[in-house]
Formats: sequence, structure tokens, C-alpha cells
Amino acid sequence: MTGKTTGKTSSIRSDIAYSTPDRIVVRGKDLPNEILGHMNLGDFAYFQLTGKTATPEQSRVFNALLITLVEHGITPSAIAARMTYAGAPESLQAAVAAGLCGLGTVFVGTTEGSARMLYEAFDSAGDNPDLQQLAEKTVAAYRGRKQIIPGLGHPLHKPIDPRTPRLFQIAEDNGMSGKYIALMKLIGAEAERASGKVLPINATGALGAICCEFGFPWKIVRGFGVMARAIGLVGHILEESETPMAHEIWHDIEARASAHLRG
Amino acid sequence: MTGKTTGKTSSIRSDIAYSTPDRIVVRGKDLPNEILGHMNLGDFAYFQLTGKTATPEQSRVFNALLITLVEHGITPSAIAARMTYAGAPESLQAAVAAGLCGLGTVFVGTTEGSARMLYEAFDSAGDNPDLQQLAEKTVAAYRGRKQIIPGLGHPLHKPIDPRTPRLFQIAEDNGMSGKYIALMKLIGAEAERASGKVLPINATGALGAICCEFGFPWKIVRGFGVMARAIGLVGHILEESETPMAHEIWHDIEARASAHLRG
Amino acid sequence: MTGKTTGKTSSIRSDIAYSTPDRIVVRGKDLPNEILGHMNLGDFAYFQLTGKTATPEQSRVFNALLITLVEHGITPSAIAARMTYAGAPESLQAAVAAGLCGLGTVFVGTTEGSARMLYEAFDSAGDNPDLQQLAEKTVAAYRGRKQIIPGLGHPLHKPIDPRTPRLFQIAEDNGMSGKYIALMKLIGAEAERASGKVLPINATGALGAICCEFGFPWKIVRGFGVMARAIGLVGHILEESETPMAHEIWHDIEARASAHLRG
Amino acid sequence: MTGKTTGKTSSIRSDIAYSTPDRIVVRGKDLPNEILGHMNLGDFAYFQLTGKTATPEQSRVFNALLITLVEHGITPSAIAARMTYAGAPESLQAAVAAGLCGLGTVFVGTTEGSARMLYEAFDSAGDNPDLQQLAEKTVAAYRGRKQIIPGLGHPLHKPIDPRTPRLFQIAEDNGMSGKYIALMKLIGAEAERASGKVLPINATGALGAICCEFGFPWKIVRGFGVMARAIGLVGHILEESETPMAHEIWHDIEARASAHLRG
Repeated sequence: MTGKTTGKTSSIRSDIAYSTPDRIVVRGKDLPNEILGHMNLGDFAYFQLTGKTATPEQSRVFNALLITLVEHGITPSAIAARMTYAGAPESLQAAVAAGLCGLGTVFVGTTEGSARMLYEAFDSAGDNPDLQQLAEKTVAAYRGRKQIIPGLGHPLHKPIDPRTPRLFQIAEDNGMSGKYIALMKLIGAEAERASGKVLPINATGALGAICCEFGFPWKIVRGFGVMARAIGLVGHILEESETPMAHEIWHDIEARASAHLRG
Repeated sequence: MTGKTTGKTSSIRSDIAYSTPDRIVVRGKDLPNEILGHMNLGDFAYFQLTGKTATPEQSRVFNALLITLVEHGITPSAIAARMTYAGAPESLQAAVAAGLCGLGTVFVGTTEGSARMLYEAFDSAGDNPDLQQLAEKTVAAYRGRKQIIPGLGHPLHKPIDPRTPRLFQIAEDNGMSGKYIALMKLIGAEAERASGKVLPINATGALGAICCEFGFPWKIVRGFGVMARAIGLVGHILEESETPMAHEIWHDIEARASAHLRG
Repeated sequence: MTGKTTGKTSSIRSDIAYSTPDRIVVRGKDLPNEILGHMNLGDFAYFQLTGKTATPEQSRVFNALLITLVEHGITPSAIAARMTYAGAPESLQAAVAAGLCGLGTVFVGTTEGSARMLYEAFDSAGDNPDLQQLAEKTVAAYRGRKQIIPGLGHPLHKPIDPRTPRLFQIAEDNGMSGKYIALMKLIGAEAERASGKVLPINATGALGAICCEFGFPWKIVRGFGVMARAIGLVGHILEESETPMAHEIWHDIEARASAHLRG
Repeated sequence: MTGKTTGKTSSIRSDIAYSTPDRIVVRGKDLPNEILGHMNLGDFAYFQLTGKTATPEQSRVFNALLITLVEHGITPSAIAARMTYAGAPESLQAAVAAGLCGLGTVFVGTTEGSARMLYEAFDSAGDNPDLQQLAEKTVAAYRGRKQIIPGLGHPLHKPIDPRTPRLFQIAEDNGMSGKYIALMKLIGAEAERASGKVLPINATGALGAICCEFGFPWKIVRGFGVMARAIGLVGHILEESETPMAHEIWHDIEARASAHLRG
């Protein structure tokens, strides 16, 4: 309201949404009349991020992508949210925020790593590269740097991660199984061959490849895990409010952690 | 893995999800085979929270409820997320978390307030209460305590909040417009009458009433705003990564805030 | 830099600090030359908050106040920080933030509750009130509302919280044991008498009273716990980076929580 | 309390603190009797992190290190905290947490970068390396990778950052100016020579070098900025509670950001 800007061109500009007394417009559509009742949440997330209406095929794949990341049981993220809720039940939003803070390079954020790996592989190659050669080159480069290949291997889900074939099937059924998914599969096979280990493509590897098929910048890919997990964490906090476990975890861990000091 | 508990009954128990090497089960359904490709994100959120599959009617209303809360333009929450991303672009999840931390009693959390008010109104009344009398009693009680009635009034959206009639319409079209929405409407009318002011039922008032129609505990209602806004904030961070405004906000505000000290 | 304001008086104004190319001034003092090397961290915290230099007496009491809140072993807050660090070790700041999010009405924030109770007791009384009567009235009011009296009782530290007599002694030794500490002691005694239970004044009760002696607004009192605990959490994260416990907690709790689902 | 572990060695172990009904022990010292009243906050932070009592010299340098990082005016971090407090004033801890979330690789976290650079420089060299050669090699390596050298340059504080000479003086006065500070100075001079630009050693460069003189692992160095800034942010929230700026920032930025959409 006081927004008189100076003469110079301002970079304070957002194209996402605006409001007037009788309208709320998001990405050019009237929220009450053109969006509410016409979209599901996953499609609206797609619209919020891209400004485009998802096709039915994109809708199916994008909703599956997000749903995969909502809930994984009692994870470190869920424990952090529950411990936080125990101390500040009046600040539910802070408990969700605490649970999200750990979605970094070790958990969930690995989706970002595989998307980046796939984009960079194609960026470094010419037009119409040989995918098998690209997979071999990529695996060799990671192994040469003694770096873990993102999106491969899982401590529990062996010899295959049950989400991966299903996600790839959904992508294929909807005409979205392109060169990125193809390369990811070849990288998985080549990594198993080169290492002699069982290295299934895990869910974050499958999702990273699907994000590339959509064309999402790798820097935002972690955001899908963050928005999805926010939903899951509200579920955990609801359960914690009804059948809490935080206090027992606390007393148990504290007793074990300090037993040697207590003598 | 070390999880041998002592003889006593443990309260460390979650009914949400579990995994085995070849299965991931959420609320009793196999995630890859029974959920992925069969649900949209809003329906899965409903399933995660309640353990029940939404009916088509519930699906339409619940998706509309969540979508309403995703995006409101350049809010304090979006500014906090953008300022955070500017300092730690490698920690996208922390930028979303920062943006969520402020969804409290002033913004978004007011949905919680109206749900609580409606539940408590019916709790304090006998069976089949006269709704008009209940509205009058509720408004009088808030006015007596000089408390703001949650869910009424909006600084911009006057004389009506355009989201409210649309949300009520969607609820009605899907057979979910019951006594809570009826009471909320009567409270709005009574508050306008008693105060002599224009006090439209705002979106958080409408959503609070709809949450009551679903039967969600009021303590978790704030969580819908939190999960929805997480989606919106990823959209803002994506835009900030492409056309940033944080640095200009910072330099502008800093210069204005300290102008009097600099002399 | 673009900070041309409009004609109207702006409320964007901060009196805390400003910088020029060769100066950084905090609360009117030159940071490099008048502060660094001349103050300890606790005294600078006092200066940052009040704009005043602590007297030697205030310095001793304020440093003791903050130190009391730094470290309490493996608390829910420390567990949340450690779980977060395990997922995002590259975002140490987000792990501290996660640990702080739960310092609310249940833990640490109770300091706020006792400060508020003491201020409101005196606000409701006339000049020179009889402290014993004020204590009885306060206890009766809380008991009448079936509300827990903030700052009393401790699950472990019984029959006395060892921090409390020491904090009160430090306040007395430094001439800062006034009417608020006197009232807190009387409230503790009266609550034990009225309830027939052992209800020691705990550390947050003692600290709340000391905050009142300083004259800090009760709304900011929680902030002392927050700033202190940030220090403690960095200590826990340093230890977690060297001898981690997060993964074992995770696997242990997950196994116990889902044992009944796995059958 | 239920903490019976299985036979296997548990990694759930913390050496920081423990409590019994009548004792609270931190790093082997009795908190009420051996710490409260005997240490200032900075010294206790040192003790919490290292388990050692700071010498008077270490105390002066460590307190100066932390104080430098407390307050820098209206930073992105302070704006994020203030915007958060405006939405959730009942969750002060969440506002501080939001402000901390952005202390990453762009702001504050650069202290980590310079500490790491200095440690790695010495790790890559033999015993008694020639410091001038090491500086040249380090600068050449960063320039070869087109990477910014951490700890050099400042948008405002030119041609020198006024904190740097003061911090180095305090280190020297207290016998803590060793090989890391020496190398940092040579890197600064060499970077200016090689680039032809004015590149003052900024505060994070000076602090990174001082952290190395203390021997702190580089992974924890960011933590000093985090704990210090938590203090500063409480100061900003206190001011925001008394003379708020968040709403004016919000309305101003929103109006400017969406002016082009409104037409």
C-alpha cells in the first residue's frame, strides 16, 4: 500500500499471485471460480510451480511422484517432529518445520542428487548420445571420485525397491518414460556390474529421473520431498497428540545415553 | 533392530506405516500397488490422516480445502522463506521450514480458532440446539471477553471474501453442508448485527467450519494450512531461484530502518 | 540503497545497529573498538537487549541466568537436533533451529509463565501489597481454574531443584533479590501447603522471578532459554558428528513402533 | 528409565551431562555449585563444547569471536525472524529458529569455508611449510576452479573490514596469533595481488582463522555464528514486539511485487 518505488527498475516482482477486494488470482486463474472444485491438490501443486495445467498423463505421474514421498514410517524426520510437538504443542507449525529441517543430503534430498547427475550426464554429451556409453562414463566418474552414486542402493529394500518398478510403470503408461529414465536404468545396471554389489535403483533415484522427464530444475527437486513430507508429518503429529511416544523415547534415550556417567 | 523392550507395556507404537524388504504399507494399503496411480495427493493426505479412503464427495471438498491454503501471494511466510533461501540456497528444506514457522495464531492458524469455537459451541449446548440462539450466545461471549471472533473479517476482501461462498457451495454440492457451516453463517450475521461492522466470513472461517463437518480435531486443523503452504512456499523458492527479490528487500529495508541512526 | 521512503512516516525503523564502510555500531557503541575485548558474551547479550551496560552485579546474575538454560542432557530438543543433523549434516544451522522449535509451553517456556504470573500478581494488587496474601490469592486462583502453577514441581529434582537455592543466592549476593523472588518463594510454600504435595520451585520458576527483578517483559523471557539452548545444541551436534546416536535411535524406535504391524 | 539395552554395545551414549535428583553435572562439573556464579556465558559455551575450562587468554578471544557474530543490523536473518514473529507471536522460539535457518553458505556460514580452507592448506603441505608459497598455491587453486576464496571481500566494508584488525589484535594480545592467522593474512594479500581487486579479509575470514587457532573442527565452526545470532535475533524480536516493522514490510513488498499483475 505504501509501495511507491523509486525510479529505478525494481527486482521486487512476483508472477505467482495477486489479490484485489473481490478476486484472488493464482498464475492467471481465478482461485475460487477456476481452481477450487476443478483441481486436485497434486495438480494444483503442478500449476503453482509451472503455471501450466497438468495433462491427465502428467497429473497421474506427478501425483504418484509426490505421494511416494509423503510417508515412510518412523523416520528421523518424524521423530524430530514428535519431540518438538511434545515441547510446544501450541506450535504445531514449528513441529512440522522441525521435521522438515533434516530433509537434506542424506535423506530425501538424494532425489536432487540423481536429477542433477542425469542432467549433467546429458549436458556433457553431444546430441543423441549412446546411453550405454553415457552410463558407463557416469559410473566410472563417480567411482573414480569414490563418490556414492545417488539414487542407488537401499539398506532395507533389497534386491529391489518395490516403489521403483511401479513408478517406472506409471511413467511408461502415461508416455513419460524417456531418456532420463532409460539412462537411470542403465546406470543402475552398470553400477551393479562394476561394483559386484546389489544396487537397486531406489525411490529417490526413480523420482529424480521422473523429475528430469518433467524438466524440473534439479535445484528445486528437493522441494517435492519437502512438500510431500509436510503432509506426512501432520499425520504423525495427529497420532502423537492421541497416542504419544515422545516422552517415552526421551526418558529411554536419556537413561541409556548417560548410564555410563551415572556409574 | 535393538528394539527389545522391557516387560512393561511400551507406548512407542505407531499405526501409520511399516516396511519390509519388499513391501511399504501405509494405513494397511500397499503403497506401490494399491496407492500409487490410484489416488491423487489430496486423497492420500486424507488417507494418511484418517486411515480411510475419501468418498468422491469428501475428495472434492478436502482437495478444495487444502488448495485454498496453498498460495496467497507475497505473505510474511513467503518473505521469510525467500530471505532464508538467499542465505542458504543449499538448504531448500530449511527455507520452507522458516516460512512455515510463522503460521500461528495471527495468520493461517485462525482456521484452528474457528473450528474450536464451533466445536465448543455445540459441546456447551444440549441436543438439537437452536442454532440462532447458539450464534447469539457465542457472539455475546466473545464480545463480553473483548475477544476477536475467529474467522470473521478481512483487511482486503470486503464486503465478502470471494473464497467463502465458493467453499460453502462446494460443501453443499457434495452433501457436506451441515450444522457447523450453518452455525458459522449465523455467527457471521450476528456479529455484523451486534457490531454494526462489515464482518465477512473469511476463508479461515469457512475452512474451520468445513473441518468440523469432516470431524477433524481442532488441534490438528492448523496442520492443513501448514501442509498446503509448504507447497506454496516451494513455488516461491523456485521463483526466488530464478528472479530473486531477497537482496533488494534486504538492502531497501536495512537502509530505511537505520536511516535515523546514520544521521 | 534504494531506500527512498514515501512522505508518510515509516514504521520501518530499528534502533539496534547500523554500519558504514568503516564502522559497525551496536546500541551506540563501536563494535570493534568499544565492545570486542571489553565485554563477555553474557554482558553483550544484556547490552543487545537493553541498550545498557550491565553493572558487575547484573553481569553476574544475568550470566548465571543464561548459563542455567544452556544444557540439560539428552532432552527432546537435543534429540530433535541430532535427528535433523543426521539427515542434513551440511545444514548445521537447520539442526539447531529444529532443536529450538520445541522450546514452548511445556519445556523451557515455563520461565515465561512464572514471570507473567508474578507481574500479573503485582499488577492486580495495590501499592505495597502484603506478599503472603498475594501468594495465597495467586495460588487459590490457579487452583480454582485447575491450572498448573508455573515454575513449581519437577519430575526428577525432588524435594528441591538444586539450581533454585543457588540462583536465589546469587541474586541475593548481588543485591537483586527483591519482591518478585520473595513472592515466588511464598507462592511455592503456599502451593505445597494447599496441595499437600512436594512442589519445589524449579529452575524455570527461579529464573522467571529473576527476569522480573531485571524488569524484562514477560513476552521476551522465553527468549533467554532459546538463546542459551542454541549454545547447548551446538555442543550436542558437535558430539553427534563425532560419536553419533541418531541412527541407532531411529532403527530402535522404528522397530519398536511398528512391531505390532509387522506381526 | 526403561533403558535396558540388549547385550550388544550401544552407541547411544553422551558425555555432556547427566542429572540425579539432587545434582546436575555438565562435563564433570556440578552446575549449581561449580559453574553458576563462576563463569560467564562465553566461557561456559567453551566449556560445553570442549569440556575444558578456558584460560583467561582463551576466554578473551573466544568471547570476542562470539560477540562479533551476534548482531549485524537488519539482515535477511532478522527480517525472517520478524516476519515469523508477526504471524506467530506466541511461538517466539519458532521466530528465532526461522531466523537461524538461513545462516548457510552465503551468510555467516562462510566462517566455515575459511576454516576449512586453512586446515586443508596445511593438511596438503608437509611439516613447516613456507607460508607464502602455501598462500600462493591456495589462491591459485581457488582461482583455477573459479571459486570465490572464503573470508575475503565485503560489499560494504572497504577497503578494510573494521572487525578484522581488531580481532587479529585481540588474538595477538592473548598469544593466539599463530600459523592459521598468518596464512589467512598472506592469502588475503596474495588474492589482492592476483586479482587486482580490493579484497579485505572480512570478519568471517578472521573468525575462521581464529577458530583454527583454537583447533575447532571446521564442521562445527558454523555453529558459532548460529549460537551468537540466536542472541541477536532475540533482540530483534524484542524490538519487533515494541515497535513492529513486519506489517509495513509485508504490505510494501506485496504491493511492489504484484503491481505489474494488477495492471
